[in-house]
Amino acid sequence: MATTHRENLKSQYPWAQSPLIVCAPMRLIATCPLANAVTRAGGLGFLGAGTDVSTLSEMLKEATTSFQKTPLPKTPDGILPIGVGFICWGADLSVTLSVIEAAPLKPAAAWLFAPQDPKELLCWTEGIRKASNGLTKIWIQVGTVASGSELAKSCKPDVLVTQGADAGGHGLVQSSSIVTLLPECVDDLARGGFGHIPLIATGGIMDGRGVAAALALGASGVCMGTRFLASPEAVISNGYRNAIVQARDGGVTTARTTVYDKVRGTHGWPESYNARGVLNQSFWDSQKGMSEEENAKLYAEAVKMGDEGWGEKGRMTTYAGTGVGLVKRVMPAGEIVQEVLRDSSRRLVAVSSRL
Amino acid sequence: MATTHRENLKSQYPWAQSPLIVCAPMRLIATCPLANAVTRAGGLGFLGAGTDVSTLSEMLKEATTSFQKTPLPKTPDGILPIGVGFICWGADLSVTLSVIEAAPLKPAAAWLFAPQDPKELLCWTEGIRKASNGLTKIWIQVGTVASGSELAKSCKPDVLVTQGADAGGHGLVQSSSIVTLLPECVDDLARGGFGHIPLIATGGIMDGRGVAAALALGASGVCMGTRFLASPEAVISNGYRNAIVQARDGGVTTARTTVYDKVRGTHGWPESYNARGVLNQSFWDSQKGMSEEENAKLYAEAVKMGDEGWGEKGRMTTYAGTGVGLVKRVMPAGEIVQEVLRDSSRRLVAVSSRL
Repeated sequence: MATTHRENLKSQYPWAQSPLIVCAPMRLIATCPLANAVTRAGGLGFLGAGTDVSTLSEMLKEATTSFQKTPLPKTPDGILPIGVGFICWGADLSVTLSVIEAAPLKPAAAWLFAPQDPKELLCWTEGIRKASNGLTKIWIQVGTVASGSELAKSCKPDVLVTQGADAGGHGLVQSSSIVTLLPECVDDLARGGFGHIPLIATGGIMDGRGVAAALALGASGVCMGTRFLASPEAVISNGYRNAIVQARDGGVTTARTTVYDKVRGTHGWPESYNARGVLNQSFWDSQKGMSEEENAKLYAEAVKMGDEGWGEKGRMTTYAGTGVGLVKRVMPAGEIVQEVLRDSSRRLVAVSSRL
Repeated sequence: MATTHRENLKSQYPWAQSPLIVCAPMRLIATCPLANAVTRAGGLGFLGAGTDVSTLSEMLKEATTSFQKTPLPKTPDGILPIGVGFICWGADLSVTLSVIEAAPLKPAAAWLFAPQDPKELLCWTEGIRKASNGLTKIWIQVGTVASGSELAKSCKPDVLVTQGADAGGHGLVQSSSIVTLLPECVDDLARGGFGHIPLIATGGIMDGRGVAAALALGASGVCMGTRFLASPEAVISNGYRNAIVQARDGGVTTARTTVYDKVRGTHGWPESYNARGVLNQSFWDSQKGMSEEENAKLYAEAVKMGDEGWGEKGRMTTYAGTGVGLVKRVMPAGEIVQEVLRDSSRRLVAVSSRL
């Protein structure tokens, strides 16, 4: 059983190195440059389609052109070696299916997150499998043990992504870290006969140490979001990138909240979700009782300030995980992948050799 | 540097195996039977003096008698191979110092937690070092990167305990898990010249997988609380123990709250702390707006129900971490220590050999 889920993952993404290093499908941030760089470095990059699939066709075309021009060895026929992430409560399924059906190369994976009702995931799963002739693997993100086992049973996903509470951006209001979520999911899936499904850990993984820990806990691979924000390929402003590099001690300088969605006018997330970001004036003013309207107005003014609108004293939304203090410099995304692969391996060998 | 802090820990507790497995100084729960069992199995047991040191002298006498009668090999002269945990906002320092001064064998470690003001920890540190002729090592528990580095500088503790948000019972209202807290503490301490201080990870570690992960993240040892609740040596009712074994999916079935302190009439915790427990009627009623007074009254009635007062539908406080779902059966504390030592080693060897 322990071998099966890893071999399973390797056969799904034969170009990738082991353990699988994934870049989160961050909405508006993870586009072709980031996804391509991660995949070409031996990982698996994701495009963040998010809640809006109107640009999906264009994004897939751009990626397809890149991989047709410079193919990646070991990519199976008909497969685009990058994935796409969907925020299911907002993304249009029928448009998504048309785009996938029309695509000459099918995305290697579709990452499904945050449906209004978990039952909708079955339509997404079946629809994408059909539209892609089974070439697009189904990834489902979960934050609890129970939902992991229920969705394993109903959707039979190819991969489950287990997100812990340290994660930046959107996730469950209430959850544990991967320290407990991951091993309990492993055990519960095995008991239910789903031990072959590979688990990708996410939430707080920043470097080789986090990757090594995730593997020890039972993951077959990891996904990082915050770490990749500090890459030139991430589509974010310098203000955001600087705020990430400067923040530290994320357990107390970030928080899970709905404030940052509200000031930006993002509506529609199911109530069980909020998002973790670096604390700034929008947060503190909300804590002091400022109205949503006033806070949104001040946010709109901060937008006009450009890079000056960011940071602890700014108001711009800086989604990031608790590990933000471990990001010390900006590095090309491909180098991040190679560094964490090398460091996680070294770390595991060093720690195990001492025992 | 990486070697120094581990050798440092081994020299402090020469009877113990590596990595160091510690039992949390759970107030009222961790008394001589649990502390002795953990130490005799190759770990380090702690007595939970907590906020009340009136029984400390008796507890130390009992432990001393045990180790004088059946000595543990490799215990240095004058040392009782168990530690004591103090909740500093409530515990009386002068009584503590008198007891330690009078003790024929000095406790191997004093674990200091939750002072009203962090500055008080210097009095505790200096007082205990003097009263024990330097035989009692100073452990300080932290939950943020900044406090770890500040206390390293001011108190020069022998050990820092880094507690993540998954931990059961009391901890910081706001914190990350050990996934990010631990490596950032390691880096920050090293930058400040305190890389020699060993870190003990706590919060969500339940079995060999959690221990392996903590070591990968940079810990020299681990502390478990919730796991040891499911041992016969823990001084808890069967109702509490059963509730621990039955709970699962702790990310959503436990929460950090002050409700459980309030219904029990526990007052005095600094505002930056609350405690994680299994959700039950006391919690749900509080969420629905029940007054503290009414909730406390219903709690008092539940106390009279004995073991029936526990569980999801009960009202009795069931402090536990998010990993509670990984506790599947009651085992002697010594066997828990041996099992996690064996499993963590196997896990690290298995994971590293695959890379």
